[in-house]
Amino acid sequence: MIYTKICDLLGIKYPILQGGMAHISDAVLAAAVSDAGGLGIISAAGGDVEKTEKEIDKCFSLTSKPFGVNIMLMGENIDEIAELVAKKKVAAVTTGAGNPEKYIPMWKEAGVKVIPVVASSALAKLVARSGADAVIAEGTESGGHVGEMTTMALVPQVVDTVDIPVIAAGGIGDGRGIIASLALGAYGVQVGTRFLLAGECNISRTYKEKLLKAGDTATIVTGRRLGHPVRSIKTALWREYSRLEYTGDVTDEQLEEMGKGTLRAAVVDGDAKKGCFLAGQISGLCNKEQSAQEIIEEMFTQAEEIMNGVKEWVR
Amino acid sequence: MIYTKICDLLGIKYPILQGGMAHISDAVLAAAVSDAGGLGIISAAGGDVEKTEKEIDKCFSLTSKPFGVNIMLMGENIDEIAELVAKKKVAAVTTGAGNPEKYIPMWKEAGVKVIPVVASSALAKLVARSGADAVIAEGTESGGHVGEMTTMALVPQVVDTVDIPVIAAGGIGDGRGIIASLALGAYGVQVGTRFLLAGECNISRTYKEKLLKAGDTATIVTGRRLGHPVRSIKTALWREYSRLEYTGDVTDEQLEEMGKGTLRAAVVDGDAKKGCFLAGQISGLCNKEQSAQEIIEEMFTQAEEIMNGVKEWVR
Repeated sequence: MIYTKICDLLGIKYPILQGGMAHISDAVLAAAVSDAGGLGIISAAGGDVEKTEKEIDKCFSLTSKPFGVNIMLMGENIDEIAELVAKKKVAAVTTGAGNPEKYIPMWKEAGVKVIPVVASSALAKLVARSGADAVIAEGTESGGHVGEMTTMALVPQVVDTVDIPVIAAGGIGDGRGIIASLALGAYGVQVGTRFLLAGECNISRTYKEKLLKAGDTATIVTGRRLGHPVRSIKTALWREYSRLEYTGDVTDEQLEEMGKGTLRAAVVDGDAKKGCFLAGQISGLCNKEQSAQEIIEEMFTQAEEIMNGVKEWVR
Repeated sequence: MIYTKICDLLGIKYPILQGGMAHISDAVLAAAVSDAGGLGIISAAGGDVEKTEKEIDKCFSLTSKPFGVNIMLMGENIDEIAELVAKKKVAAVTTGAGNPEKYIPMWKEAGVKVIPVVASSALAKLVARSGADAVIAEGTESGGHVGEMTTMALVPQVVDTVDIPVIAAGGIGDGRGIIASLALGAYGVQVGTRFLLAGECNISRTYKEKLLKAGDTATIVTGRRLGHPVRSIKTALWREYSRLEYTGDVTDEQLEEMGKGTLRAAVVDGDAKKGCFLAGQISGLCNKEQSAQEIIEEMFTQAEEIMNGVKEWVR
């Protein structure tokens, strides 16, 4: 059975983390992933402290397995969320959009493992120096907020830069992605897009249908002009947004305005026109609805088959 | 020893192709790669039929091993180059920027293996139907002209789409990339950036120095607005070009003008200011000058070590 130092670090059966997806990753999804042997992660990206506390408490009531919380460092109420995470002593915290340095001593004292998401070797080096337990090297093929480096290029370069374990994220949708990640030097994977199709993932039917229909080139990155690129499923709205970005026809403020409320419109309302349906390039490969447990077991069964088949690569 | 059906298809020792880099991949580099057991590839991207013929003849005189020619289908004199390739009966032809359908019967009759470069499953399906022998699925992390899909996301989706063998390209700089590619379902790799540092690669000293110094985030994609994105090393010129793309301050014609002659300035003149130094995101990992043979042997030795070490991934 595939087992790495990430399993030891987090006390989990399979070296797989569920991505902390803003306004999506709740207690139900996180508990399902954790019960299935991965690390479920609750998103605190909304910055609603009370709601985050409720989700954490709910997750503790749903599972006895370790789970984590994801914090976007550019969001609101970060100090309060950071303290909440320490107070609740969740198994791990993953962070996005920056260096969580100032919170690390507090978290470590509370026994919370600290695993920042990084999009470059430079940030990986910084967070490792600050005491992070591991890093998630996330490629631009992932859904939601993205950097420029791809998983294939980023992971080995981060592995060469830091001494702490690296977890690969971005473009991983099945067992092939797991073995590719391990080959690149990672000790585990983080998966977002495929878990959107988990039965325990509470997003609109429209969102799920869009994922099921998506082909490999179904996604688009918008927001580069504003400095916060985001990957989502191509719709008329985001094609138009992309076109406008390259013109002088709109101001940055108008672009900001166009983006407002669009994630909620996708996740909650299932509004096909207004919604921003965050998803990774691996969407084309994610084409069935399963439970979190079925997803994880299928991925690792396939990964083990590939591993046992490496002898086909030699002569 | 790592050996796949790509070795059988092309009559080579290692399943590695050297990327056809416009204005760079000449007979000397191609022959060195072929002599080392890979498939060397001459670029005909300039569209100069006479020069391409000379390079092919020179390559035949330099090596008895199989080698190929790369043709950018958007270039000039494509019909003539296509006929030349058939006449010379090189081992293989790789094509970029489209579907080489109309030339395939001629090439196959001449015994030339046809291996188009694709950036989506849709194009892979088309060229497979047209009779291609294999496809190169190239991710956006590669240098030069790029698509949007990344290697990690593209390769498994192309593998699921076609029955012919898939070769992975983009972000592959060492043995880890080879094993990752095989895990994703590819039967070989194509490498460009690392071969820029081969002793047999005749580019300016400035170019090589830029590659040696490059870190993981050293590259930038420009040209998205014009519809032909290109990845190169960030310099003041290309940062400015990128900024201008997102404004109404320049016309498309002005942007086209800015790009003219910049590849030659990089490759031949070594002009650090005007040059467009094409390179992939894996540049940060390519940090030594070696012969083509040393590069290939080091990559496959490392790949075999990883393969023999998969037992560390289980418990």
